[in-house]
Amino acid sequence: MSGSIGELGEFGLVAAVIARLPQGPAVLLGPGDDAAVIRAADGRVVATTDLLVEGRHFRRDWSSAYDVGRKAAAQSLADVAAMGAVGTVLLVGLGAPATLAAQWVLALADGLRDECAVVPASVAGGDVVRAEAITVAVTALGDLQGRRPVTRSGARPGDVVAVCGRLGWSAAGHALLAAGGLGVEPPLEVCVEAHRRPAPPYAAGPQAAELGATALIDVSDGLIQDLGHIARASGVGIVLRTDLMVDAVTVLVPAADAVGGDALSWVLTGGEDHALAGCFPASVGLPPPWRVIGSVGRGSGLTVDGRPYDASGGWDHFA
Amino acid sequence: MSGSIGELGEFGLVAAVIARLPQGPAVLLGPGDDAAVIRAADGRVVATTDLLVEGRHFRRDWSSAYDVGRKAAAQSLADVAAMGAVGTVLLVGLGAPATLAAQWVLALADGLRDECAVVPASVAGGDVVRAEAITVAVTALGDLQGRRPVTRSGARPGDVVAVCGRLGWSAAGHALLAAGGLGVEPPLEVCVEAHRRPAPPYAAGPQAAELGATALIDVSDGLIQDLGHIARASGVGIVLRTDLMVDAVTVLVPAADAVGGDALSWVLTGGEDHALAGCFPASVGLPPPWRVIGSVGRGSGLTVDGRPYDASGGWDHFA
Repeated sequence: MSGSIGELGEFGLVAAVIARLPQGPAVLLGPGDDAAVIRAADGRVVATTDLLVEGRHFRRDWSSAYDVGRKAAAQSLADVAAMGAVGTVLLVGLGAPATLAAQWVLALADGLRDECAVVPASVAGGDVVRAEAITVAVTALGDLQGRRPVTRSGARPGDVVAVCGRLGWSAAGHALLAAGGLGVEPPLEVCVEAHRRPAPPYAAGPQAAELGATALIDVSDGLIQDLGHIARASGVGIVLRTDLMVDAVTVLVPAADAVGGDALSWVLTGGEDHALAGCFPASVGLPPPWRVIGSVGRGSGLTVDGRPYDASGGWDHFA
Repeated sequence: MSGSIGELGEFGLVAAVIARLPQGPAVLLGPGDDAAVIRAADGRVVATTDLLVEGRHFRRDWSSAYDVGRKAAAQSLADVAAMGAVGTVLLVGLGAPATLAAQWVLALADGLRDECAVVPASVAGGDVVRAEAITVAVTALGDLQGRRPVTRSGARPGDVVAVCGRLGWSAAGHALLAAGGLGVEPPLEVCVEAHRRPAPPYAAGPQAAELGATALIDVSDGLIQDLGHIARASGVGIVLRTDLMVDAVTVLVPAADAVGGDALSWVLTGGEDHALAGCFPASVGLPPPWRVIGSVGRGSGLTVDGRPYDASGGWDHFA
């Protein structure tokens, strides 16, 4: 399909997008009406929304439309997983200039669709409007399947802190791209790919709930900052040990060497990988790929190897 | 609260917004975690999303932040009503420049909250990010309460076509504002207010479902265009009669006279009032304020007083 979305028109564009979006079993009524109707057999629905704005959350010269779709879907589906739920559908609002190539929007839809397929979920509805900057608003719904939701506020002294998924890969990839490394070779290329397409461990969310997680969070803003949310919400202190993160750090050393970055800093403060971090009673036998990285104590705040860590390395959307 | 949202910071802003948002009984877990958890006792959830962009859907010199909040909430809650459902919660994503006054965002939140209170629903979650243009992404969820969803595709020859709510008021208000009428007197002021704050007949959606509506739609893009969607989805023709719209037209004549506009054209093609339009078996006794304005026949398309109507007067977001 050639031409701009302005030439295609709103209804032509929407029809072309819908034609690319298969609907999953949770969708009782899909795109094309005033609203979608989604199955919520559990009697509860998990719901979260995120905005991505061009220039702030992605760059079109660094990420393809397909990658932006993958990333936008992953970001919201990871939030659903972090409640201990399974994603069911996305609703996607797109703001875009009339001059944008229709092909870009179709590739975005393909990315959304394919990331949904990992869960599996589907894109059940949306909206397109004209805007100066490309804006992608993603709402994800999820199903707790009878489980209690795992919040940020249940961590207790004596718990262990564990993570599942990548840490710092997206930050490393961003640093490589910022250093002009668009053509970087493997193994560095994996970090760039991780920046373009996070790979959240979706199944680890419900798994954590089943294992008895007391608190769970999606690492979107950096481990330090996000575990800080758990510490604050739970009224506990969290102690991280970098000797338990050696593997996570080591894998990023080649990238750090290439750009003069700090691999440990990426692991501790890099966001957008959408790993899951949680707290579990010490008695729980955590199966791989969960890795224990610290523990929960009394008090407040977060220390790394016994010292307070300046959490300002995280991501404030207005800083 | 003085200062910009950049000065306040993301977390300070979110905390101040959350403090203004009471949570309704449908909210099992409200703002502040990775996702909200919403009651869906029916076993299904209705879900719809809309984007509003400054300069395209609102102007800050024409509408206050509070009004933008009312309008943004109304737009999505009306979509829920148009399925025959009752709105339960909104999730709201806000993109805004760091220089925006924090007070503007708080007033927006108040508008969202107060429009929700009409239903009643509540704002159960959201996201704030930095963006050049103010962008408001609203997702509304709703509860069918055991009813079948009323889609666009069930209209049958022999049905009557009826509407509930205002038609053309927002278009008249827009024309008055465009003519420089910021200080217009009553009764014209009601049109300007209607442009700033639509008043969708939320309860009429579930009522229509109970009455046996065969098709239902939210009139967001204009009566002609939106009934055209029903005609197409249902495979029927729709016949509108302007003699059944005399009251709707008459109320707009003073505004039309003031700006040299056409009251009938506003009624037929004006969007954003979020009236509900539906089709019902002719045997149904429709209570006020439902008004019959036409009928459903065989064939396709839409005629007004027996003639085809150029539906291009509606709203294409990329035109």
